[in-house]
Parts: sequence; structure tokens; C-alpha cells
Amino acid sequence: MPYHTEAFNHYLETHRERFLTEFGQFIAQPSVAADGRGISEMAALVVERLRALGAEVTVFSTPGSPIVYAELGPRDAARTLLIYNHYDVQPEDPLDLWETPPFEMVIRDGIIYGRGTSDDKGELLSRIQAVEAWLATQGELPVRIKWVVEGEEETGSGHLGEWAEAHRDLLAADGLLWEGGGYDEAGRPTFGLGGKGLAYFELRCKGPSHDLHSAFAPMVVNPAWRLVWALSTLKAPDDTITLDGYLEHVRPLTDEEWARIDAVPLEFEAMRQRWGLAQWLNGMSDHEARRRYLSAPTITICGFHSGYGGAGSKTVLPAEAVAKLDFRLVDGLTVELARRLLREHLDRRGFTDIEIIDLGGEEFAASPPGSLVERAAIAASQETWGKTPVIFPWYAGSGPLYPLSARLGIPVIFAGATWHPNARAHSPNENILVRDYFDSMRFTAAFIAQFAALES
Amino acid sequence: MPYHTEAFNHYLETHRERFLTEFGQFIAQPSVAADGRGISEMAALVVERLRALGAEVTVFSTPGSPIVYAELGPRDAARTLLIYNHYDVQPEDPLDLWETPPFEMVIRDGIIYGRGTSDDKGELLSRIQAVEAWLATQGELPVRIKWVVEGEEETGSGHLGEWAEAHRDLLAADGLLWEGGGYDEAGRPTFGLGGKGLAYFELRCKGPSHDLHSAFAPMVVNPAWRLVWALSTLKAPDDTITLDGYLEHVRPLTDEEWARIDAVPLEFEAMRQRWGLAQWLNGMSDHEARRRYLSAPTITICGFHSGYGGAGSKTVLPAEAVAKLDFRLVDGLTVELARRLLREHLDRRGFTDIEIIDLGGEEFAASPPGSLVERAAIAASQETWGKTPVIFPWYAGSGPLYPLSARLGIPVIFAGATWHPNARAHSPNENILVRDYFDSMRFTAAFIAQFAALES
Repeated sequence: MPYHTEAFNHYLETHRERFLTEFGQFIAQPSVAADGRGISEMAALVVERLRALGAEVTVFSTPGSPIVYAELGPRDAARTLLIYNHYDVQPEDPLDLWETPPFEMVIRDGIIYGRGTSDDKGELLSRIQAVEAWLATQGELPVRIKWVVEGEEETGSGHLGEWAEAHRDLLAADGLLWEGGGYDEAGRPTFGLGGKGLAYFELRCKGPSHDLHSAFAPMVVNPAWRLVWALSTLKAPDDTITLDGYLEHVRPLTDEEWARIDAVPLEFEAMRQRWGLAQWLNGMSDHEARRRYLSAPTITICGFHSGYGGAGSKTVLPAEAVAKLDFRLVDGLTVELARRLLREHLDRRGFTDIEIIDLGGEEFAASPPGSLVERAAIAASQETWGKTPVIFPWYAGSGPLYPLSARLGIPVIFAGATWHPNARAHSPNENILVRDYFDSMRFTAAFIAQFAALES
Repeated sequence: MPYHTEAFNHYLETHRERFLTEFGQFIAQPSVAADGRGISEMAALVVERLRALGAEVTVFSTPGSPIVYAELGPRDAARTLLIYNHYDVQPEDPLDLWETPPFEMVIRDGIIYGRGTSDDKGELLSRIQAVEAWLATQGELPVRIKWVVEGEEETGSGHLGEWAEAHRDLLAADGLLWEGGGYDEAGRPTFGLGGKGLAYFELRCKGPSHDLHSAFAPMVVNPAWRLVWALSTLKAPDDTITLDGYLEHVRPLTDEEWARIDAVPLEFEAMRQRWGLAQWLNGMSDHEARRRYLSAPTITICGFHSGYGGAGSKTVLPAEAVAKLDFRLVDGLTVELARRLLREHLDRRGFTDIEIIDLGGEEFAASPPGSLVERAAIAASQETWGKTPVIFPWYAGSGPLYPLSARLGIPVIFAGATWHPNARAHSPNENILVRDYFDSMRFTAAFIAQFAALES
């Protein structure tokens, strides 16, 4: 089903200033899931904006942020598209590194700055505005749209899974358009069919009630040593994971999956240069790095803190040691498996004094290639940019897609594209390009048209 | 040689207020070696106070704080006593935990508060005032006194060793009265004949140029893991040091030394309670704890810092990891040995990427029992408090005594006593008891008399 591209694009031109003004209102409304600032006001703004499209909007309250759910388009449409976005943002600190106020939209040299521009208000609102433009220039939507806009993505989507499980029938759809997607270093659109899972744990070990003079080390337990010893049993210096019984759960990849991984172009030399690295870990080749990047489960020490950290020397025996670990999960591994095996592994070695604090997780999820959403996204990419997108079989990163995709049996794609390599999502001076903001509308319209029209 | 105790004590009574006023002047003069604040002013104050005794005072400049050196008493005295004190203090922070201003002497409920009251201005000045009282009530000193007052003790006495080596003849003496000594939990005077050595190192490992998204863990080196693996090879979970070739240098103790260690009373139950510990490391007995406390070399992780340390989760791969290690050295081990073996040990295992930053050290030093200074201190303890002191063969802690004692062949004793278990040296609200301040003068006089009079 073709659509009237010229009329659509003309509408974007005509309403350009208002669209940006609305974007400014979204940016100006803080919505920090970490401390709840502005969450209810932002949810109300999203509800209002979706209702202005004529959508039926329901707000589902959760123990955390409310989930905004909207439906629009013909009830009898042949196909239903589920869309996922989120209205919450990362905290703005460190404030002093922002060159402009975080909750103020500032446009400079074709770049839109502000917290949430990239993650995820720009994509959310540009999709809403795309639907407005469609309705104004094309008439009725060719698909039924179900839209989930949650408000806890930045703190781990703690209530999305339970809510989705309780609303399986409501959420039934033929495809799921996820947030994210973006452009790579070479300017290619990059889409993904899933993401690795993530299990995040804090390991905590306690010693004496306060830091002691280190002269007492011969007879007082040192929690920093305990944690070092415990961690050293989880992964070997050659980077092989040695967590008991863990790797045997990893599903071996098929030749077809390896081929899809090998086909992903990555700008390795640029990455190494940007990160100041002479070579990859253990001197592996770029080919091997690509394969490991997408196929390897990981256990990463994200943080380790204990005792004195100032300048020079201080002779203390620390009272406590804390490590933060993230496990990136490939197919076959689950949050629950990581949690259980980690506890058993530590206990088996006598580290029963190390407390494991569960800091949430997300399951691995990836849709098979050839799905309707994938084909629609590839065709829409050609229409929008005249480019064949890079397709990741799944991203090395993670997101809360499992409850809405794999769990409900709905094929997913990360597509759209407001992210770019210098977007600084989660960091000061978060930004997107003005051009990408409007291209996101054009891509959304093309995607909807293709999703409605392609052969099953 | 007896001395006129009554006249001496009467002098202390008569000059009590002035003595405390002078102490207040010492406290009011900041002298922070860490940043040099007030060091030269404080050195001048010490020079002036020693000259007021009639001492010949020389100020030796060093690349750091000046060393104040004084001599007084008859040149033809049969014996020469070397005394060590220091005029510098620890930084006062954290300031908000002080209940009274750190550089103001406040007396409340028999307790004198202020930075340096315990470490080491109270002891330094009370010894000076004791000499004044001696001269005023007893006449000439019965010994020649050589007094070294340095100004960099709190930053590791970086220039004392070289200076002492260059002035071996000047410093020749029959015994060395060190700073420190104090009262234990049970109120017993505790003296020591030496201290363990100390080697302090910072281990630093670098990864990418800034914290990365942890999704890149499969191909990017993680410095926190590197440091965990490296550290785990230095000591085993049963607390045995596994640094290659290190323990074989430890001199085995003699039965006589074990007997002296076993004779040291330690308030183990009180220590465990104060520190919130159900038991000692690896469930060892109090007997074993005492032996290990004084005989075991240690490698202590004083600090380990890398990556994210805030609340909740953050999925980063850290750019850097830093550990601070202190090695307490027993007889046979040296700073240089620890440094060399550590480097070799890490290199042998491929940890050539871990930088070792030398943060100073002090050698093990302990004088044999039965020395003149020890016997004088025991006798003076009986005179002052009517108590036999606890004698540590050496302390588990460390100090810059090697260059003045072992290196010059002068028997040393840590005696005196202004320290008490709640003195909070190095911490906010540092304090000593008014009673202990004046007892320090009585002890000093008794010690001088005994040192002059005892059989060789």
C-alpha cells in the first residue's frame, strides 16, 4: 500500500515549528524514573497528546510509574502493530557538564539538545506526530495501532513484565515496533531483531563495623580480599567464564546465525581509536571481536569499591566491599539461572558471607529473520534514506523487550532512528539532529504503509 | 640516681596553668605535613620552646619539613639519651565531625581536645615541660639529651632516613626514647621495643579511555577484572601469602620471642565487641590471634576502587581500577624486597599492564629486651603509676624508627604515655586526658633519672 509521500512531507514542513514547540514541551517536563520527578505530569502530557490523535487511552497504574496504553486505527484492520516507547528519562546529573539546561530544548547548528531528546522522547513524539500527519494527509490508518508507553525503562522496567503478562489478550498483535535503532558511524540505519538479556547483581561483603587500622589484618577478616577471591573464581584471566554449570546452558548458534552476525558491519578501527585501545581483548581479530560482541555471554565488573580511595596512602582495613556485576545473557541463559548458579557457586566455595543483592534483569529475546516487521523496516529504510539498513540478529545491549515480544510471541524490530553515535543518551548534552527528528516521522509513515501492505 | 619527686610535682602544680596555656599555643598552630600548612611557623615555635630550656638548637632544612635538632645537658654526662618526637599533625578533615574547632585547645570534663593533642604535640611539649621542671627543681640534667623533632611523620618521614644517615656521629647515643606508648583498655601502660615495617603500594590498571557501555565487554579489556585476578594471586583464601619467594625471607622467631609475644595481654573480647566481630579470621583462637597479630607479615587491600559505586545499577565497563596495598613487614622482609618481588610476581603472570606506584615505607626494627632504655622505662612506670608496663617485643604498627634505632645501633623504646584507647589520633575530636598530660611529665623525669642511674 503506497501512501501520498508528497502530501505527508508537505504537512511536516507546514507544521515544523509547532512540532518542535511540542517537542520543547516534552523536554521541559522532567520525568526522572530514578526519583519520580515529574513522572505523573509527563504521563498526563503523553495521554493528552495521544488523545489529540483520537486514540483511546488507558492509564494503568503500577506500584511504580503508570503505563500509558493507547489504541487507534480501524478495529477491523487486517493487521495490528504494537509500538513500544517510554516517557521517562535518565537523571540529568552531572549538571555542571551540561552546556545548556537539561530540561530546556535548545536548537543549535541543526542539533536539538535536552534530556530525553534521544532517549526516548524524540522518537516517541516524532512517531505521534507522524501518525497525526498520516491522519491529516492520508485519511484512516491502514493498521490498528496498540501503543505501550511506559515510565520506568531507565530503572529497569520493573513492572512492565507483570503488566504485559496480565494483558496478553489486549496486547495481541502481528508485529512489535520497538524504540531505538539509529545510525552507525558510517551513517547507515541500524536495526535489530532483539537484544541480549541482562542480570545485574550487587555483591556485598562486610568485615569489622568500621574501617580499622591495618595493623589488625592478621586476625580480622578483610571484606575486600574476600570479594577479590570470590570474583576471581567467576572468570579466568583468559576471560573464560568459570561460573559452575553456567556455560553449558548457552545454546550453540546455527551456521545461519553466525552468517548473520558476520554480516554486521562494525567500525572497529574507529571504535578502538575513540576508546584509546591498541587492540581488542587478548589480541583477538576484528572478525573474532564481532562474533564475541554478539554471541558471548559476559560477566562484567561494573564497579568495585572498598576502603580508601583518596590520594597517597592510608593504612586501613576496610569495613565493607561492594561489587556491581552485570551478566549479559545470550540465548539459553536466564536471569534466574544466573542468580541461582551464582549463589550456589559462591556457597560451594565458602563465600556464604557474600550477600547477593538482585538489581533486576531482562531476558534475552530475539525474533527470527524474515518477519513482517523486519521486511517492513527494510523497505521503509529504502524509502526514507535510500539505504539498506544494517540488521543486528540481536543487539549486544539489552532492553525490556522480552515480556512484549518473545513472551507474547510477537516478532519485534528495533527500528526508527533518532539515535546517532554522538547522541550522548544517559549523559550530559544529550541530543539528536533536527534532520533525524523529521526523518523519524517519514520512516514511521513508510513503516506503517509497508507493514499494512507486505505479503505475509 | 633518685630525684626530688616532691619538688618536681610541686613545680607541675605551680605551673599547671602556664603549661596548659603553652599547650594551647601548640594546638592553635596548624602544622599539616600533607599540605605544608603552618609547618615553618610550628618549627619556629618548637625551636623557641627548646631554646627557652637552654638547649642548643639547630634547624636542618630538608626538601620537605625542617628537622629541629636540640642538645642540652652536660657534654660530659656519662650517658646520652636520644629523644624522638614530631611537630606535624594529620589533616583535620572531615571538619564537620569535630565537636570543637580542631586548632583550638578545648578542655572539657578532664579531657583536652584538639588536633595533635595525642599525636604528637602533647607528648612533645609535656616532655619539654618535664625538662624545664627538672632544671628548675633538680638542677643540672644527669644525662646529655639529643632531641630530634621532625615535621613529616604523618606523611611517611620521607627525609628522616637520609638525614640520620648523614649525621650518624651527631646522633650517637646510649638509648632512644621514641614517641607513642600509651595505655591499653585495662589502663595498663604499654611500651614497645620496635614496630613492624610497612611497604605501601598503589596498583593501577587502565582499560578504555573512559567508562564504556558494558555491552562491549566481550572484546574490551576490563581493568577491574585484571586487578581482581592479579590480587587473587598474592594471597590465598586461607589468608596465606602466595607472593612468589616472599615468605622464605621471614626470620623464624625464637622460643624466647614467642614467649614474649605470648606474655602480651590483649583485650580480645573487648576488641571483637567494639568491632562487631563474632570471631577472629578463620575462627582462630585468641592465642593464635595474638601470635599472628605480632608475628605475621600481611598484605592488606586498604582500598579498591573502580567504576560505578552509586545506588542501583549502571552498566559500565570501567576505564580504570586502582588498589592500595599495605605490606606489614616482619624481621627479614624489607620494603625493597616487597617491591621487587611484587613486580616480578605480576610480570611472571602477564600482569605487566599493572603499574605499581611506590607510596613509601618503613623498615622493621626492634631492639632486644633488657636494654637500658627498657629497664629505665619499666622502673619509671613503677614510680609513676605503680604498675609494671606491658612490653611489646614490637608493635604490629609501624613508625620511622629504623633510621634512628636499628640503623644507628641505638636501642629504642616506645614509652611515655599520652595515648589512650579513645584518643582518636588521626580522627576528628582527637584528645588526651589532662591527667595523662601531667603524668607524661612525671614519667619523663623518672625515666631520665633511671636512665642515668641504672647499671649498664
